[in-house]
Amino acid sequence: MAKRTDKIKLGAFLHATGGHVAGWRHPDAQADAGTNIAHQVELARTAERGLFDLIFFADSNATWESGVEADRRTAWFALFEPLTLLSALAMATQRIGLVATMTTTYNEPYHVARLFASLDHISNGRAGWNLVTSSNFAEAFNYSRSAHVPHEDRYERAREFAAIVLGLWDSWDDDAFVRDKASGVYFDPAKGRALNHKGKHFQVRGPLNLARPPQGHPVIVQAGQSDTGRELAAETAEMIFTIQQEMPAAQAFYADVKARVVRHGRKAEHVKIMPGLVPIVGRSEAEARAKADALGALIHPSVAVAVMSQMATGGFDLSPYDIDAPIPDIPEAVGPQGHQKVLLGVARKENLTIRQLAMRMATGHGHFTVTGSPAQVADVMEEWFVSGACDGFNVKPTHLPGGLNDFVDLVVPELQRRGLFRTGYEGPTLRDNLGLPRPKRHQD
Amino acid sequence: MAKRTDKIKLGAFLHATGGHVAGWRHPDAQADAGTNIAHQVELARTAERGLFDLIFFADSNATWESGVEADRRTAWFALFEPLTLLSALAMATQRIGLVATMTTTYNEPYHVARLFASLDHISNGRAGWNLVTSSNFAEAFNYSRSAHVPHEDRYERAREFAAIVLGLWDSWDDDAFVRDKASGVYFDPAKGRALNHKGKHFQVRGPLNLARPPQGHPVIVQAGQSDTGRELAAETAEMIFTIQQEMPAAQAFYADVKARVVRHGRKAEHVKIMPGLVPIVGRSEAEARAKADALGALIHPSVAVAVMSQMATGGFDLSPYDIDAPIPDIPEAVGPQGHQKVLLGVARKENLTIRQLAMRMATGHGHFTVTGSPAQVADVMEEWFVSGACDGFNVKPTHLPGGLNDFVDLVVPELQRRGLFRTGYEGPTLRDNLGLPRPKRHQD
Repeated sequence: MAKRTDKIKLGAFLHATGGHVAGWRHPDAQADAGTNIAHQVELARTAERGLFDLIFFADSNATWESGVEADRRTAWFALFEPLTLLSALAMATQRIGLVATMTTTYNEPYHVARLFASLDHISNGRAGWNLVTSSNFAEAFNYSRSAHVPHEDRYERAREFAAIVLGLWDSWDDDAFVRDKASGVYFDPAKGRALNHKGKHFQVRGPLNLARPPQGHPVIVQAGQSDTGRELAAETAEMIFTIQQEMPAAQAFYADVKARVVRHGRKAEHVKIMPGLVPIVGRSEAEARAKADALGALIHPSVAVAVMSQMATGGFDLSPYDIDAPIPDIPEAVGPQGHQKVLLGVARKENLTIRQLAMRMATGHGHFTVTGSPAQVADVMEEWFVSGACDGFNVKPTHLPGGLNDFVDLVVPELQRRGLFRTGYEGPTLRDNLGLPRPKRHQD
Repeated sequence: MAKRTDKIKLGAFLHATGGHVAGWRHPDAQADAGTNIAHQVELARTAERGLFDLIFFADSNATWESGVEADRRTAWFALFEPLTLLSALAMATQRIGLVATMTTTYNEPYHVARLFASLDHISNGRAGWNLVTSSNFAEAFNYSRSAHVPHEDRYERAREFAAIVLGLWDSWDDDAFVRDKASGVYFDPAKGRALNHKGKHFQVRGPLNLARPPQGHPVIVQAGQSDTGRELAAETAEMIFTIQQEMPAAQAFYADVKARVVRHGRKAEHVKIMPGLVPIVGRSEAEARAKADALGALIHPSVAVAVMSQMATGGFDLSPYDIDAPIPDIPEAVGPQGHQKVLLGVARKENLTIRQLAMRMATGHGHFTVTGSPAQVADVMEEWFVSGACDGFNVKPTHLPGGLNDFVDLVVPELQRRGLFRTGYEGPTLRDNLGLPRPKRHQD
């Protein structure tokens, strides 16, 4: 493989109190992170000081419930809504990208198009939309439905939803709003259009009541790992978050998705693939191991099993099974099917018990964990990057702000020394920093 | 009437480029106000310098269309989405309230509850929700409907919607989230509850995935003027925006609504009634008249007629009629019926032509306009306030920032000299400043 001339891209996954289920109990953790705006400002500024491409907030339109014993020990029942949060953080930062999840399953495309277009205007071109289908079936019950939308239907709806949102963002030419005080003409109607979408799931007339976003379109992010999810991502995504536990599987995923992208007539480099990475960093390997052990000791087994149940089995209830026996057979589930394959695959290969897989997943919600000195963490990142396993990483600190501070203060300088990471932002927009083109307006 | 011991409450209505349809053409106007974040920050800070209780943004989930000739001369086709905007402005201000419209007609209560609860957390207790039914029928076409929801159905849906949002805000006790690092307990499930709402329009399980808002509930604002609208407001509103053109009618509205409030078992002073007020202020009366004339000269008749058609006739097309003949008979319309009665009532009484009513409405979108010196404007405000016509005003500057600057620099000091207006904020939350109680959590 030819030496890469591009740089590693970095996202900071700042959801709740961090990626480790017990991270909020760490002495360096802000336990009320999810609703503490001063703390969120501190995190965003730290990530910007570390020259991250973006900060990212996951989302759900319901509580993630898995039984009282586990629930009451978790930190994700009280969280800011991400679009309001990112709009606030836009004012406390200058360059960092602002990305959040918003579901296509229990939402309306006109709302989503408006919210992200507005964030893109507020932030002068730093918005990104993580386009998902809902994996939390409980959202159905908050949106007047008696059951979760089935997997294939969710993707069909998502595809139509994405086309509408992209179409609404293209409602106006970049120069439609002339605002000529002398003549009294505010805009040129010939430079706008209604969408007049009539599809299976939605009818949306348009136009959007907002000028074209500064980036043309906010950056489209996706995280689907199933075959259907990969196809949708190859069609429409510009950044892909993925769960990968081992480099060969990550390389295969990377090659597969890039090939799909090219088959859809797009350039491979216009889609950035970013696996989750949970770094546990110490100034020495021993210090890092001690941190990992201290975090591990804070985990209550009920929480670990509950998280595993959500992530790896799509909500299948493991509590009746012996926690120290191998994982039982799991039926195909309603949850994120691609994640299940990756995680259960590792469990079968290593013959892990329920407890063993659960504890491993608890560290980073199933994401790849690297524990070590700054050089050791950078070694793994470099290897994945130069070996065609990724274009960068979505860094998920175990706890906040401690885990983010460690990465920014210890790992970022090491990556810069190796010439793998930027030493200054390339431009004012998220597209500038990710090296993504500004889309031309699609016209009929 | 006994002398009032309370103070005038003030809202700043900052929608688009200001209340005057041609205000954006004024030399002191920022023509791209609706999507210029630096300008919005300046406005919010000016309003806070003027000790306004709140800034307010109207909203629609569709463009307001009335024919190309008028549309292209208006400034409301490109506007920030208000919840993202207010979240950004929360970071640029300290004390001022942050209020926006969000419809109950084309939205989901779980979304609305989350967005305003999140804004209340971000702003440490400064959020207010203007609960409306959609008056712009075009929203239907952006939300997969072929026709607008009829008036009575909109109110029935709004009533159920409001109950759900209030219930979701009460999902958790104020002290439910203990976040005890030592024991590992993040919250007490006994201090939360699912809503389990099953109604005619919605089924919403809950709980909200966010702690109880700092204000208990964000302040509930309404603007319904019809009988149905007044009843809903008397049941649930804490602030009422209203269109009033004459003091006797304003007094009658005030007395009627306060009586309804009491009939619903609430205290009259827990609902603040705030008519719209368009001030055109000069250092002298002559200067103010010159400003009004200059603004009037900027109005294109097609725009005036279009605005009047939206506000006073619910979308009835007046373009086939002679602009210099009296207003024709207008059928009962789909638009805001209370507004229609007020505005058409004035037109009939004064036997105005289409052009005359249109030009009068164009100044402030149908709101009461007062042109004069600071003392003259303060005289009118004082008279309305002490005569039981209002508890304060929703001030709608003709253009921005000029019209807001004039009011803050010239009228506010005059009101303060008379002891009618605060000289410092009463407290950190919007409720503190409005003198509204913090609601207790409703439990089954």
